[in-house]
Amino acid sequence: MNSVKQIIESIEPINGTFDQQIQERLDSLTKPPGSLGRLEELAATICRIRGEIVPGLKQKKIFVFAADHGVVESGVSAYPQEVTTQMLHNFAGGGAAINVLARDAGATIQVIDVGAKGETPDGVLNRKVGLGTANMSLGPAMSEEEAIHSLKVGIQIVEECEADIIGFGEMGIGNTTAATAILAAVCDESIESITGKGTGLNEESRLKKAAVIEKSLLINKPHSEDGLDLLSKVGGFEIGAIAGAILAAASKRIPILLDGLIATAGALIAMKLQPNVADYLIASHQSEEPGHKKMLELLQLKPYLEFNLRLGEGTGAALMMNFSNASIKILNEMATFDSAGVSNRDE
Amino acid sequence: MNSVKQIIESIEPINGTFDQQIQERLDSLTKPPGSLGRLEELAATICRIRGEIVPGLKQKKIFVFAADHGVVESGVSAYPQEVTTQMLHNFAGGGAAINVLARDAGATIQVIDVGAKGETPDGVLNRKVGLGTANMSLGPAMSEEEAIHSLKVGIQIVEECEADIIGFGEMGIGNTTAATAILAAVCDESIESITGKGTGLNEESRLKKAAVIEKSLLINKPHSEDGLDLLSKVGGFEIGAIAGAILAAASKRIPILLDGLIATAGALIAMKLQPNVADYLIASHQSEEPGHKKMLELLQLKPYLEFNLRLGEGTGAALMMNFSNASIKILNEMATFDSAGVSNRDE
Repeated sequence: MNSVKQIIESIEPINGTFDQQIQERLDSLTKPPGSLGRLEELAATICRIRGEIVPGLKQKKIFVFAADHGVVESGVSAYPQEVTTQMLHNFAGGGAAINVLARDAGATIQVIDVGAKGETPDGVLNRKVGLGTANMSLGPAMSEEEAIHSLKVGIQIVEECEADIIGFGEMGIGNTTAATAILAAVCDESIESITGKGTGLNEESRLKKAAVIEKSLLINKPHSEDGLDLLSKVGGFEIGAIAGAILAAASKRIPILLDGLIATAGALIAMKLQPNVADYLIASHQSEEPGHKKMLELLQLKPYLEFNLRLGEGTGAALMMNFSNASIKILNEMATFDSAGVSNRDE
Repeated sequence: MNSVKQIIESIEPINGTFDQQIQERLDSLTKPPGSLGRLEELAATICRIRGEIVPGLKQKKIFVFAADHGVVESGVSAYPQEVTTQMLHNFAGGGAAINVLARDAGATIQVIDVGAKGETPDGVLNRKVGLGTANMSLGPAMSEEEAIHSLKVGIQIVEECEADIIGFGEMGIGNTTAATAILAAVCDESIESITGKGTGLNEESRLKKAAVIEKSLLINKPHSEDGLDLLSKVGGFEIGAIAGAILAAASKRIPILLDGLIATAGALIAMKLQPNVADYLIASHQSEEPGHKKMLELLQLKPYLEFNLRLGEGTGAALMMNFSNASIKILNEMATFDSAGVSNRDE
């Protein structure tokens, strides 16, 4: 396995070598130029990342990283902490939303326990960094060693996989609090305005959650430009693993389908470690969490779907696998004006 | 085959008999209530239309109706008229965008020639009402008999099919002009503001197209509340067939996936004939054509996708088949809190 530093240094920005060829290919197909809108944009993005004119999307992978959060003891979630481990069992049994949507999209799913408090069920990969983070409203969520460890878990998972496109999801009661704290540390918005209701808080509890985030930032003072410092002070093990996995996917030139608030917080950490990763990210959707919109702005990404999703698990990324498939099939299977004998536009 | 009148009278509004049961089912699944956003809304809509709690979506059909438009001689399109028939050959050969996207969505596709000027290719159903409409800027696009004939073509196609969900698409050089004229006749917006660039007009040609639409309305004076009058004076054979097909689908309680401007113009005609059809419509996407947004407002429908599509053919409906599938699988395949042993929220 490469070191975190080696991975970070290996990620290059995407140049425009293939842009013209991709556009010519899209414009040769039997449709008015650009008339498939964002489907064409998506196809072009996948081609650019992969560095191929006619890429295949045979191997579709979704990785779901799960961990617990000490900050839950401060009352920031509508669900009890044991739900994290219960949901690991549900993932292993194939009954969660992400199982259904990954199957539907023809993607294989791997669930990785990076630090749930309970025992890792059969069918879930045990890569525990710890048994949940510490309560970040009282001190750092994790040590710097644990932060590096969580990055390495994500890097290794992606380094060892074969994939043409990857989606990242997560599970962890309390993790919208950590994700929002990361965002709050790197942007100028008021904490209250970017704090959402997570899995379903009422307004009173949402304000309490915002206050917990504020306290966590005051006590930890994370450095807004230092990804490792942000991760260790107000992050989570699954957020670190996603950040590492994103770095590894970018270094392998695999298109990355982001999901909601937590996966995108992982992308923010990855971007602080290596700004070039932004070139490899695709914003599957705009979640209902208010902070997610801000995160996508920071990453300069325009979301494809606005479905008011707020579940996580990688569900938005799985839906986006369907579109990725469709966009690449357009490129690979449509007739050209020449081959179909269709007249092109009057010039 | 039932008469147009019988079909129209058989369409009932959807009552809320199943609403509570559908909601209870959705809320029993292992996710925070409502956290799958519009995917849940879509599942519920399909259930309501079908009148079933756990519907299957085995038979997915896309019907593409094609016809030519006399108004093309007034210079309203960027493409020559022969492209309509050339594209029928492309559909028959499986190389058009709708072929690719229908295959991808697991939907079967049937192309129906309702009035292209050229010969109907093998593999396309010949149901010609005429050889293109007359130039509506000089007089009615078709006779009332032809308008009824086109409705009947659509009705028969859907009456004879077995389908759990249907998408409608179209092909016809010049048909954004007819569709926009129908909209202009029924809304208060300025013609210039709702006239789009179609397959790719420049600004000068777009303004010319708006002027042709204005002239067509002045000369024909279609009655804004009379669907048949609108169809015969400024419609098209494929628009009439789509309107008929929508009426038949509603009478059979089959969920209808609308596509872009032209398919939605068919829905406007159908709604003028029977307002209850609105209950059976699903707005797949918001196209880039400015008039489409206004049409969806008139139908009180909120689009699911905003992909800047402006191709037609049913491509947006085909993309939406993927989501329809996914939404119904969520309903049918996800574990419940009870079955998975997951704790529900703290109350």
